[in-house]
Amino acid sequence: MGRTGVWIIGARGGVATTLACGLSAIRQGLAPTTGLITASELCRGVSLVDPAELVLGGHDVRTTPLPDCAREISRANGSLAGETVAEIEPDLARIDANLRPGVLFHSGTAIESLPGVDPDTRETDPGLALARIERDLAEFRATHALERLVVVNLASTEPPRPTHPAHHEAALLEAALTERDGTPFIASTLYSLAAARHGAAYLNFTPSPGALIPAVAELLGRGCPFMGSDGKTGETLVKSALAPMFRYRNLRVLSWQGYNLLGDRDGAVLANDENRQAKIRSKDQFLHEYLGYPLHSKVTIDYVPSLDDWKTAWDFIHFEGFLGVRMNLQFTWQGCDSILAAPLVIDLVRLLDLALRRGERGPLAHLAVFFKSPHGVGEHDLHRQFHSLEEYLSTVRRSIDER
Amino acid sequence: MGRTGVWIIGARGGVATTLACGLSAIRQGLAPTTGLITASELCRGVSLVDPAELVLGGHDVRTTPLPDCAREISRANGSLAGETVAEIEPDLARIDANLRPGVLFHSGTAIESLPGVDPDTRETDPGLALARIERDLAEFRATHALERLVVVNLASTEPPRPTHPAHHEAALLEAALTERDGTPFIASTLYSLAAARHGAAYLNFTPSPGALIPAVAELLGRGCPFMGSDGKTGETLVKSALAPMFRYRNLRVLSWQGYNLLGDRDGAVLANDENRQAKIRSKDQFLHEYLGYPLHSKVTIDYVPSLDDWKTAWDFIHFEGFLGVRMNLQFTWQGCDSILAAPLVIDLVRLLDLALRRGERGPLAHLAVFFKSPHGVGEHDLHRQFHSLEEYLSTVRRSIDER
Amino acid sequence: MGRTGVWIIGARGGVATTLACGLSAIRQGLAPTTGLITASELCRGVSLVDPAELVLGGHDVRTTPLPDCAREISRANGSLAGETVAEIEPDLARIDANLRPGVLFHSGTAIESLPGVDPDTRETDPGLALARIERDLAEFRATHALERLVVVNLASTEPPRPTHPAHHEAALLEAALTERDGTPFIASTLYSLAAARHGAAYLNFTPSPGALIPAVAELLGRGCPFMGSDGKTGETLVKSALAPMFRYRNLRVLSWQGYNLLGDRDGAVLANDENRQAKIRSKDQFLHEYLGYPLHSKVTIDYVPSLDDWKTAWDFIHFEGFLGVRMNLQFTWQGCDSILAAPLVIDLVRLLDLALRRGERGPLAHLAVFFKSPHGVGEHDLHRQFHSLEEYLSTVRRSIDER
Amino acid sequence: MGRTGVWIIGARGGVATTLACGLSAIRQGLAPTTGLITASELCRGVSLVDPAELVLGGHDVRTTPLPDCAREISRANGSLAGETVAEIEPDLARIDANLRPGVLFHSGTAIESLPGVDPDTRETDPGLALARIERDLAEFRATHALERLVVVNLASTEPPRPTHPAHHEAALLEAALTERDGTPFIASTLYSLAAARHGAAYLNFTPSPGALIPAVAELLGRGCPFMGSDGKTGETLVKSALAPMFRYRNLRVLSWQGYNLLGDRDGAVLANDENRQAKIRSKDQFLHEYLGYPLHSKVTIDYVPSLDDWKTAWDFIHFEGFLGVRMNLQFTWQGCDSILAAPLVIDLVRLLDLALRRGERGPLAHLAVFFKSPHGVGEHDLHRQFHSLEEYLSTVRRSIDER
Repeated sequence: MGRTGVWIIGARGGVATTLACGLSAIRQGLAPTTGLITASELCRGVSLVDPAELVLGGHDVRTTPLPDCAREISRANGSLAGETVAEIEPDLARIDANLRPGVLFHSGTAIESLPGVDPDTRETDPGLALARIERDLAEFRATHALERLVVVNLASTEPPRPTHPAHHEAALLEAALTERDGTPFIASTLYSLAAARHGAAYLNFTPSPGALIPAVAELLGRGCPFMGSDGKTGETLVKSALAPMFRYRNLRVLSWQGYNLLGDRDGAVLANDENRQAKIRSKDQFLHEYLGYPLHSKVTIDYVPSLDDWKTAWDFIHFEGFLGVRMNLQFTWQGCDSILAAPLVIDLVRLLDLALRRGERGPLAHLAVFFKSPHGVGEHDLHRQFHSLEEYLSTVRRSIDER
Repeated sequence: MGRTGVWIIGARGGVATTLACGLSAIRQGLAPTTGLITASELCRGVSLVDPAELVLGGHDVRTTPLPDCAREISRANGSLAGETVAEIEPDLARIDANLRPGVLFHSGTAIESLPGVDPDTRETDPGLALARIERDLAEFRATHALERLVVVNLASTEPPRPTHPAHHEAALLEAALTERDGTPFIASTLYSLAAARHGAAYLNFTPSPGALIPAVAELLGRGCPFMGSDGKTGETLVKSALAPMFRYRNLRVLSWQGYNLLGDRDGAVLANDENRQAKIRSKDQFLHEYLGYPLHSKVTIDYVPSLDDWKTAWDFIHFEGFLGVRMNLQFTWQGCDSILAAPLVIDLVRLLDLALRRGERGPLAHLAVFFKSPHGVGEHDLHRQFHSLEEYLSTVRRSIDER
Repeated sequence: MGRTGVWIIGARGGVATTLACGLSAIRQGLAPTTGLITASELCRGVSLVDPAELVLGGHDVRTTPLPDCAREISRANGSLAGETVAEIEPDLARIDANLRPGVLFHSGTAIESLPGVDPDTRETDPGLALARIERDLAEFRATHALERLVVVNLASTEPPRPTHPAHHEAALLEAALTERDGTPFIASTLYSLAAARHGAAYLNFTPSPGALIPAVAELLGRGCPFMGSDGKTGETLVKSALAPMFRYRNLRVLSWQGYNLLGDRDGAVLANDENRQAKIRSKDQFLHEYLGYPLHSKVTIDYVPSLDDWKTAWDFIHFEGFLGVRMNLQFTWQGCDSILAAPLVIDLVRLLDLALRRGERGPLAHLAVFFKSPHGVGEHDLHRQFHSLEEYLSTVRRSIDER
Repeated sequence: MGRTGVWIIGARGGVATTLACGLSAIRQGLAPTTGLITASELCRGVSLVDPAELVLGGHDVRTTPLPDCAREISRANGSLAGETVAEIEPDLARIDANLRPGVLFHSGTAIESLPGVDPDTRETDPGLALARIERDLAEFRATHALERLVVVNLASTEPPRPTHPAHHEAALLEAALTERDGTPFIASTLYSLAAARHGAAYLNFTPSPGALIPAVAELLGRGCPFMGSDGKTGETLVKSALAPMFRYRNLRVLSWQGYNLLGDRDGAVLANDENRQAKIRSKDQFLHEYLGYPLHSKVTIDYVPSLDDWKTAWDFIHFEGFLGVRMNLQFTWQGCDSILAAPLVIDLVRLLDLALRRGERGPLAHLAVFFKSPHGVGEHDLHRQFHSLEEYLSTVRRSIDER
């Protein structure tokens, strides 16, 4: 089926590094495929690209070599075993050779002041920045003789840009590229625009609002499949698994409070009010839409450096039952964010690659189950979202059988 | 549509008393219908018996007057407001007049030694005991001019009877009625047999294994709809809402430990090893069947008198994700068992009554979502179970529209 | 020993109402003395005023009659049984006759906009306001022929006033009474100043910073015993019981995050940033001082209306042990704030009354165990604080024996 | 001060291996001294043996080489870093050379059937077994020119032996050594008897009831200091820190349920009813004695293999406050048992060594704070226990100053 490339924005970050390590460890038989839904029964009989065949490359505004990133995670988190990192180091070095300097553009101080960020990646002309990104994509494809490309946004959560008319119309947005200051643009918009121009499938795994503004979604959808936003990996996943239960029993949720603690680069960026807002909106809104009645709810994200990537969340759900009696459910989630996110990205890349080969275009509604804010999908019930993925895969299987 | 009677085994217990109070409070506009799924959007357009029209009666081996039972719950639990109990006392007294002495038959010491149990209700001849029960049902129907009857088992969890060939064949079971000692029988079997003979719909809301042995299920199914067993009200409900989440993400559950604390008569009976076994089996087995791979799991039920009916449960779920990393989720559930159970019983009575009117027979698979061990249903996914109920209701709605 | 009066600022609030109900219920034999430390073994042999003999009066800026306040709590919280409230209603009405309109003075919008607040209680001249308060105290003492008076601040948490030179010197403060606008004053300062002038013992059970500014503490201490601030009732109590454990084992606390959820009038006031700051400072600071090394910590207070007075708190403690291994402890506290606070206030009143009779003056260090921010006490170890109370009581006992 | 040897029963187990690794890592500057109370301010000015100077040896019934034990822990638990284990391997090999085959004697099937247990260590004659142990101690002392010896029991929890008259009198016990079958003996009794005969200080860190039967305590106390039993490392530590809080507030504990989950060799042995009983008694009894009134309590220990050494415990505390209102506190503890235990053992060895040098004999009451069942100490208040250790250290400091 020809080779598929994966171009990652934020390629030296925790999720990207874990993904690179994981693919290499699986290839070498050092790790099981637990956590990869595309390796489960669900996808049997569906022809997906072999994860071992994926070619990785990407942009990053930091310069730490990938093997060092992996060692840092191993030390701080314990999620990558030291021995494994040692064994796959040559693979990581090979990937590192495919990485290029990323783009800072209206990215905000929280991101720009992260340790290790290279100030030379700050761009001032949107057109030139876009051209640089497109050149990198083209070179990657050519060098590795790739037939298909999936661009994946794994960069830190950006603050929202002020709304601008060009966000809503593709022609206006392209015209704005020549304006000084590039007011409507932010780094994530430039990256997704480059993907659209290049004809790559695109995945926004972050909540960054700039990545899938309507104008870009329009451009992407003309030629390719895409999906986002904000991978549903932890507390929100549990929330969306539990909310239907209250509905099935006509138990009225009075208050749903969610407290998220995390450390690490992600936590540091989200400690910033502006950046946190995008994330919080993504974690909370579905409750109100899904339950369909007013309830008190709050999502808090706190930076707790000692936790590194071990996100710890406590949710308290106060609800009312028969005769107005008040009861409660609380849960504590302790998960390693990168370990939860990386396999979802691999799954999504494989399913986007499948869609590319099948000639599908536009937002892929059947992938809603993977996202906190599924693009263009109103269904917030995790279970129905999953069933929709199952149905899609059945259709794919049938279309194969028919041939 | 004619009147429907509800005959409750265990009519002076916590769930039955709460149910009686709830129906009366709703009738008088003293309480909302929260917790009643048949009062939600789900059932709009489906013609169900008005809860205010249900006529209550039943058996119990205890003799405490129903208003006293309600006051006791109000004092110990706080789940029934003192003022409400005072206002509905006349209703409770009216229902009390419909209650008859129950039957103790091989019921085991845990039940027989409960405070307030009337030793005169102990029967020694199964045939005579059955005749007495049937007489009570017939009299209830006649007195209140009932068109339909639903028999509901809410009695304390019985220990299992030793297996016996008559459990598997209706003819053998009926023949055994004349044998001395009635070896194959236990109280719940006599009650469900009486329901079958009487032509009543039957609901086993308890885990008592005697209630729906194959021979009785055969007899019940010849003329009427029935369903069971073991209402899914609390910890198991949460468990079954969460288990699919792990499957959706191919996260491997390594261990699932569930600890249940409860006081009250239920807790006292379950403090007995024999009785607890039936319950525990019902709470645990689905995990293994649903997940389909070996995992370590344990369910513990402990008697904590100070909690009364406020069941408190803690579950610890240890799971493995990508690259073999171990993570965990824990939840604490604090719910009032009777308050959770009573509306489900009302929902089930209304849906069984609907089935009676529609001429449905045998176990009602579309009610699986209400049970820990749905009779004859292999589907353990809470969400698919709920969807199956939704589909049934759509069919009913369509059949109404067609007329 | 003559009669003792208790004059409560915030006399119609949750804690005060619970206190009034509790004293009355104990007097009538309707409730046990659980929660009253002065009713335990600890105080055997120490002659304390009989709680049944305490005469209650007070100020409030709201006008709801006390029996209505009690019924409201009974309905919303369930912490006061409806039957009990009915039986003690005559007592509550008698106390209600002793209540006088309180004083709003620079109290801030969060308090001034509370439902039920009487705008006529807003004062503009500090001298006149003080005179009114003093007149009420004098009248109360005269009417009931009281030998001793304890003034207790239970009003809602005030925001801090900007610092002012008069806060630090009694003479300057008294001089400022004649200034227009009364810049240095806030309601709580006027109340505590009135207590000082009247020669009453004074108790600041709130974190309001205005109540015990140095100038007032100086004036109070000249003639009478006093103590504060901020009763240690729930999450902070648990925190201070646990922190020593980490020290005993040389386990290093890395992060201590505390999340407090509460509804009710208290929660509504604390939802206001300004007011919350005083409270949060009081809940957090001791950790750093006690542990003596830098750690990451945060205290959050969120308003969750459905909880009413049922404070629910979750604390997450991340710590490092041998070989740098990271472990954690988390706790959830679910307590009814007024039920926890009211008995402490009774204990403190009895112990302040004892001090009055013994001629003690100034801040009572042996009462530190009751407070989040014990006035003038550097000892933060809950256990040592308790031992200091025990020692004081032994001394009292010995001095009695010697006579 | 001459060299001190530490002879460990169970020298290849998790705690012993962690201890050996920890001492070596500290010596090489690879780890901090967090968790070692003797390395904190508390012991400043008290002359204790340098941990780096301790010479390790011991018995074990398993034969796995110590470096392999360390690697196993590193893999399964993550509590020992792989790199550290690699660097200290030569040290571990040196200690391994000091290890001798242990003794199985009435040890019970749970222990005897552990994987890796050497059946040749089963002894049948108590006198010969004792002689072998004594010979090993003597040889260890001679080889390393040790001035003092501390024998430490870290072996798996034994089941209790049936009571026997010889348990209560030293002369009878020694006489019983020549009897066939050695009815009164169990392995731990033989070890502690050997320590007594050898003149070594003795530490029972386990709950094994055989280790400090009265007859052995009598023999040990004649010449040496000793202490036990059952190190207080996790859930019980938290319990004993919290119980006083309820007393300080006269809050009545109604129920205290404790659930402990652990994997690993310890968990496997405790999965056995007989062995678990000794442990559970040790974890629970203090509550009743300390609180001094009847309460409902239960301690459960469940074997959850996937947790390895990461003990996870959930405690639920139901309590009653003012006006009989019921409230609750729950905590979850997630700690690595060996990491918590190993530094306590080092602390205790150093303090026993200090006592040896100071000529102290018998049970050391000032060490009560380290144990669940402190030998001969009735004080169960963790905080008073700690203060007693502080006072002892002050006395020691003063006696140094006086010289």
